[in-house]
Amino acid sequence: MSNQIVLIDCPDAKGLVYNITKVIFDLGLNIISNHEYVDLNSKYFFMRTVLEGNHPEKELNNKLRTILPEEANIRLSSLRKKSVVILATKETHCLGDLLLRNSDGELPCDVKAVICNHNSLKGLTESFKIQYHHIPAEGCSRKEHEQNILACLEEYKPEYLVLAKYMRIFTPNFIRQYPYRIINIHHSFLPAFIGASPYKQAFERGVKIIGSTSHFVTDNLDEGPIIVQDVIPVNHTFTAAGMAQAGRDIEKNVLAKSLKLVLENRVFIFKDKTIVFD
Amino acid sequence: MSNQIVLIDCPDAKGLVYNITKVIFDLGLNIISNHEYVDLNSKYFFMRTVLEGNHPEKELNNKLRTILPEEANIRLSSLRKKSVVILATKETHCLGDLLLRNSDGELPCDVKAVICNHNSLKGLTESFKIQYHHIPAEGCSRKEHEQNILACLEEYKPEYLVLAKYMRIFTPNFIRQYPYRIINIHHSFLPAFIGASPYKQAFERGVKIIGSTSHFVTDNLDEGPIIVQDVIPVNHTFTAAGMAQAGRDIEKNVLAKSLKLVLENRVFIFKDKTIVFD
Amino acid sequence: MSNQIVLIDCPDAKGLVYNITKVIFDLGLNIISNHEYVDLNSKYFFMRTVLEGNHPEKELNNKLRTILPEEANIRLSSLRKKSVVILATKETHCLGDLLLRNSDGELPCDVKAVICNHNSLKGLTESFKIQYHHIPAEGCSRKEHEQNILACLEEYKPEYLVLAKYMRIFTPNFIRQYPYRIINIHHSFLPAFIGASPYKQAFERGVKIIGSTSHFVTDNLDEGPIIVQDVIPVNHTFTAAGMAQAGRDIEKNVLAKSLKLVLENRVFIFKDKTIVFD
Amino acid sequence: MSNQIVLIDCPDAKGLVYNITKVIFDLGLNIISNHEYVDLNSKYFFMRTVLEGNHPEKELNNKLRTILPEEANIRLSSLRKKSVVILATKETHCLGDLLLRNSDGELPCDVKAVICNHNSLKGLTESFKIQYHHIPAEGCSRKEHEQNILACLEEYKPEYLVLAKYMRIFTPNFIRQYPYRIINIHHSFLPAFIGASPYKQAFERGVKIIGSTSHFVTDNLDEGPIIVQDVIPVNHTFTAAGMAQAGRDIEKNVLAKSLKLVLENRVFIFKDKTIVFD
Repeated sequence: MSNQIVLIDCPDAKGLVYNITKVIFDLGLNIISNHEYVDLNSKYFFMRTVLEGNHPEKELNNKLRTILPEEANIRLSSLRKKSVVILATKETHCLGDLLLRNSDGELPCDVKAVICNHNSLKGLTESFKIQYHHIPAEGCSRKEHEQNILACLEEYKPEYLVLAKYMRIFTPNFIRQYPYRIINIHHSFLPAFIGASPYKQAFERGVKIIGSTSHFVTDNLDEGPIIVQDVIPVNHTFTAAGMAQAGRDIEKNVLAKSLKLVLENRVFIFKDKTIVFD
Repeated sequence: MSNQIVLIDCPDAKGLVYNITKVIFDLGLNIISNHEYVDLNSKYFFMRTVLEGNHPEKELNNKLRTILPEEANIRLSSLRKKSVVILATKETHCLGDLLLRNSDGELPCDVKAVICNHNSLKGLTESFKIQYHHIPAEGCSRKEHEQNILACLEEYKPEYLVLAKYMRIFTPNFIRQYPYRIINIHHSFLPAFIGASPYKQAFERGVKIIGSTSHFVTDNLDEGPIIVQDVIPVNHTFTAAGMAQAGRDIEKNVLAKSLKLVLENRVFIFKDKTIVFD
Repeated sequence: MSNQIVLIDCPDAKGLVYNITKVIFDLGLNIISNHEYVDLNSKYFFMRTVLEGNHPEKELNNKLRTILPEEANIRLSSLRKKSVVILATKETHCLGDLLLRNSDGELPCDVKAVICNHNSLKGLTESFKIQYHHIPAEGCSRKEHEQNILACLEEYKPEYLVLAKYMRIFTPNFIRQYPYRIINIHHSFLPAFIGASPYKQAFERGVKIIGSTSHFVTDNLDEGPIIVQDVIPVNHTFTAAGMAQAGRDIEKNVLAKSLKLVLENRVFIFKDKTIVFD
Repeated sequence: MSNQIVLIDCPDAKGLVYNITKVIFDLGLNIISNHEYVDLNSKYFFMRTVLEGNHPEKELNNKLRTILPEEANIRLSSLRKKSVVILATKETHCLGDLLLRNSDGELPCDVKAVICNHNSLKGLTESFKIQYHHIPAEGCSRKEHEQNILACLEEYKPEYLVLAKYMRIFTPNFIRQYPYRIINIHHSFLPAFIGASPYKQAFERGVKIIGSTSHFVTDNLDEGPIIVQDVIPVNHTFTAAGMAQAGRDIEKNVLAKSLKLVLENRVFIFKDKTIVFD
């Protein structure tokens, strides 16, 4: 059975749920699940509805348009697999974990390719029968490197890019090509330890808990909307390297969890924060 | 500003959300928040709606009746304070924590009295200006003891009883007087370590995590619907007494959290499980 | 039975454990528990030993001196209760929780007094039969205010000051009087959200987890050695006030846990970090 | 640099640490880290010492023998890689995670082979260049099946067997061949939900947290000494299948963590419980 997901966000108004569900009811559609949330400060309304079966998108969209305010965002999508390209550098745990889950059918996506700036992940990638591209950053400018990646992506036209411990920073120009469509895993409990070597920073500060944060990539490094966070305890016996190793256990799960939420259309972005209907 | 909470549960049917929100819309009421859940196995529908302002309950109830199936449960209630009596035995942490929160106005309840089978908690209770009753279990039968408690409760007619480490078991006859209105904290991660001395059991089994569970009291000891659970790590250096002391830190929070959820009308009970709209 | 705790820290050297345990063995003392840790970067050694019974401190100290490097720190102390003064402002949860635990005998300390800059916590404090002082900050300079507090403390000569949500910042001059003897609870997962209104900051950043941190107070605001941290999940439905309320559940436990560790002589401070033998 | 690990357990006695460290000191060896624990109920002593460099095992063992009680267990081992065979059935997450970590060098072991009773994990195993054996349980008696596995293991003589969601129960006869050398991951927070379909049991009980437990396999199903446990929150929206999927995220980490602890000689077994020096 295939289902349809309706995402609506707009300024709040009396009767929104009634009017939306009336459209759905009049079309004879059945609601399987329904989440609403109103940001009371901004008087803004968010709704995620799963409908049984698929209805012609155009008609549903048109009918919703007639009862919603003009500035409303309506997104209709079936629970089909979305195309994804993964970027990585050297570490295997996040990439390997995503490839394992993908081959298991756990993630509703189609991993089109893996792109790496180093060349050590070829064997891992290809053992999962996924297309591998090595696009080195050495010997070219940052701009050229990004152009090479964009050219490669052109072939796949992925809906989402997943940075599975991709250790380079993209320019605003690159990010603009994939607005709120790049998901990164940062190896700290943001906003603590922004930037490079967060485990080293955590070690030096002597924290008793370390974390991991997935977020959408925006122009401001490590400041995009947070999707998922998780933490684990550490203590004085952990070196920075020990923290890094312990942190991998949550990094991979946080990244996979956030990707799943995004692929299932459970995530709204509003004012640089996420609303997650999980 | 006062709000009204509408709780509805009934067999699922197409158009329920539409029909319910139509009644609300036609009455000119504004929805502040709305949660729905459908148990897909049992095809059963649950909804919690918070309305801005108060509407005459009778009219709202009657209009909802006309569009809902006959077997629907409709509960309307304002976010008023509910009356509560706490029962305890000897330990101070749960009772003290509840009294602290109550005096802070953190819990939407009115603690009418504390009843203890031992007599060591009088000072603590009275320092919070709460009525205290010592109803000893010694020197009388279980039936007599429960009759004495029921007689005392008669004076307060509480909507909920909270067992804050009350270490005696009630008979089905007693429980029948407060169906799904008695909240207990059990000092284990149920269903592990049912019954007496759960920390001793946990110690003997050598678990690496201990837990705490709040639940509604039913005839089956420690088997009522679970409301909230939490855990903390332990290790081989913990004695049973050490586990008990560590466990207190979560017991009090779990009990308070579950009481708050219940008092805010966020908890449905269905087939011996809870649906919690938090 | 009374025990004696031996804390030693010094530059690491071959044979330290052997030489120390030889002294203990030769004195006929029995080791109940023993923790060692060597900071491998700094080649620095830490040891906490619990001895059965009490031995004349002077002899033990002298014998240890003969076998340890000159710069070694040796601290001997019985597990006696240490004197503590609590400072608070307005919030009840941390203060109330400490007073509850203190009256239960859960903390090996003797709470001498509570000092508040506001005057709303008198009733709570006195209900636990603890001396209360209101020392307002209004109408006097920061320096005068601190002098008033120091004068009041003079009477009690506490070994530790506990800041139970004391919302003012001490000057270096004040802190110098209690070096590494002031324990604060900060309502964030440090180093995230240093400074004022951390829950508001957390809300605005859209984090999915909030935290609480206890630390020793040093001249650098919120940058002293961290003792304990804990976290709880939040989501988009939490307002800043909702986060603040949820955060209280961990603030009080984190503060109490860190105080207990300090009182039990389980905490070493080294290079602005703590080594905690728990 | 290679190190040597000394594990000692014996009845407690005065002077044990002194006598042991004297042997080490007299041999001119340097202690890098040292953990002791005394079970106060049983008056039993446990010690794990890491020595810099390698000393002839025989001499060290003999010298320790002379100062330890006769019933003492002494185990000397370098931090060399231990040989491991993994058994699995159908699920990929635990097996894949172990193979990933193994290929990363994260685990100090040498995975000799993977044995499966079903045949779907061949591709995954071989993509990591690990020897794969399909030993079906169908068409033969339980005894024959176990004989086939034992015959296969004979070739590898592994020090540890890891059951990575191996869904069959071994007979006592099989287990006797690998006493406390078989590590299993059970998909529940033991002792809750012993036996088959723990997630289904958890779903039916309506728990709010689910867990995962690694343990040594003994004759009593799911009652062997627990090594590591972890949990994650769930709620009423989780089906049994949803719990199973969420549970995988902790199963793999718990299994890997416990294997690492065992391989690093950090785990003692005493009275059906573990002492873990982590």
